[in-house]
Amino acid sequence: MDVNQEILKLDWKRQPYGLYAPIEYTLSAGGKRVRPQLAMIACQLFEGKEEEVLPAALALEVFHNFTLLHDDVMDKAEIRRGRPTVHVKWDENTAILSGDQMMIEAYKLLAQLPDTKLPTALRMFNRMATEICEGQQWDVDFESQDDVSIEAYLEMIRLKTSVLLATALQIGAYIAGANQSEQETIYQFGIHIGLAFQIQDDILDVWGDPLTFGKSVGGDIACNKKTFVYLTALNLLDKEGLKHELKHWFGQTLENNAEKIAAVKTIYDQIGVRKACERVVEQYTQKALLLLKELPQNNATLQLRQLADQLNTRNS
Amino acid sequence: MDVNQEILKLDWKRQPYGLYAPIEYTLSAGGKRVRPQLAMIACQLFEGKEEEVLPAALALEVFHNFTLLHDDVMDKAEIRRGRPTVHVKWDENTAILSGDQMMIEAYKLLAQLPDTKLPTALRMFNRMATEICEGQQWDVDFESQDDVSIEAYLEMIRLKTSVLLATALQIGAYIAGANQSEQETIYQFGIHIGLAFQIQDDILDVWGDPLTFGKSVGGDIACNKKTFVYLTALNLLDKEGLKHELKHWFGQTLENNAEKIAAVKTIYDQIGVRKACERVVEQYTQKALLLLKELPQNNATLQLRQLADQLNTRNS
Repeated sequence: MDVNQEILKLDWKRQPYGLYAPIEYTLSAGGKRVRPQLAMIACQLFEGKEEEVLPAALALEVFHNFTLLHDDVMDKAEIRRGRPTVHVKWDENTAILSGDQMMIEAYKLLAQLPDTKLPTALRMFNRMATEICEGQQWDVDFESQDDVSIEAYLEMIRLKTSVLLATALQIGAYIAGANQSEQETIYQFGIHIGLAFQIQDDILDVWGDPLTFGKSVGGDIACNKKTFVYLTALNLLDKEGLKHELKHWFGQTLENNAEKIAAVKTIYDQIGVRKACERVVEQYTQKALLLLKELPQNNATLQLRQLADQLNTRNS
Repeated sequence: MDVNQEILKLDWKRQPYGLYAPIEYTLSAGGKRVRPQLAMIACQLFEGKEEEVLPAALALEVFHNFTLLHDDVMDKAEIRRGRPTVHVKWDENTAILSGDQMMIEAYKLLAQLPDTKLPTALRMFNRMATEICEGQQWDVDFESQDDVSIEAYLEMIRLKTSVLLATALQIGAYIAGANQSEQETIYQFGIHIGLAFQIQDDILDVWGDPLTFGKSVGGDIACNKKTFVYLTALNLLDKEGLKHELKHWFGQTLENNAEKIAAVKTIYDQIGVRKACERVVEQYTQKALLLLKELPQNNATLQLRQLADQLNTRNS
């Protein structure tokens, strides 16, 4: 089943258009559809019925896109997937209200699950939704917090990124009939590939190829974002004068960031922070692959393994 | 059971505080708690178990407060229940994110219902949530729409105000074991008292006692809001020159509105629009009371009748 096609099949030609057109706009912009695909793969892994999992898979994608829509308002982001964001194309109020409606649409899709599966799936979904908001809030809090520990950062990205992947896998597995222990294993697989994914993202922001990396390289440095790379660098620099220099650069907001990005990269390269971060990506990936061995082995397992491998080696 | 106490008992002392403190702030500000009370009264009417309905009652109140929180951002309202709104006390991003989390909290409360009741209650809740967003969007659309029909206005307030009252009653009745026909009757009772309530609100905005009416009298006139009173006046003025004068006033945005409010009130009084509107409130109330006769007669029915009567005669 092609989940992308199923998402594009959702009908938003409804009145009032001012409410639904931004939802259609957001969902038609593409994206990799990773979350609904994970739900479907987990369903295949446990030999469930695809059509039974589909409403949950769609709900996860709609919810994910809702978070992007509201995040873009909060971040004042102007471009998403190569197109103006909703609050730019329409206005901020439209983005708030249509975003609210998108969250409700996610719950409506979820409510299409069979009555026997719905209560448990709803509770999993609610926990995930809460954790994503908590992750977002921690991310905001960290901006104005001087000392963020690596542990706190990992917890933040677990909440903000990993739990949605993990819950997609768990809900797919649950609906397909997986037992508690299998659900927990596939959930943890999702957590670990999510952490690997986000740290790899932080690495690519510094060392990615400008031609293939979707965002502008050095963007996190320019806006002083406390990424895994930055926090790892601070740890490695614990007793050296370079720590002061790195903090100095991260205390500045500049018009032109070329010099700053180059200077920070030089510090990073001097202390080998890239290798250190890549090792952590590798560790999370290995842990994920280990968890996968505890699960049924079939074509779906192969897809999950490829996914984990891709995250580890991707450059875009 | 005192639903207000139950709402205040909800624990928001959770991390990250930036996410949960605004929720506590919003829910502790009071309000009449009409919606959870309606759910509880409907439960009593059908002799259900109060503790079984309670999670749904709380979910309705939390959802209602979420809509107020986001509406205040969109309206740039600075005061709610005598206190600074969340986006004023914190900031707009906080209001957006905490509002999102409040909606999720509503769904989490709902998910505490017994598994046997949850799927149907969730679908009722989702329909209501969608209709509220649609009502809000129509309200926004009407601002820039020159000719709004009375029918379109009634449909907007049905969506924006009535369905939440009606759904509170229906969910309470459903969980208590009411049959489909009883649920539909109590739902329609809610729709009609909601319409009566909103039109009465429009009337009070013009002729309310400044000392007892919560909002500033004439506020709708000042901001050119196309209320039931205004639309009824336009209808009554269909063939007269005063229509032009009324439209003229409603085309202006002024610093000082005293003259405008007085002039519009004079037009309203000349054509007896107040009486015409009060008749409609009376009609909706009578229809609601008629519906009530089809339902079981006990102490809960009495409470619902009093509520309907109060709406009809209230002056604040």
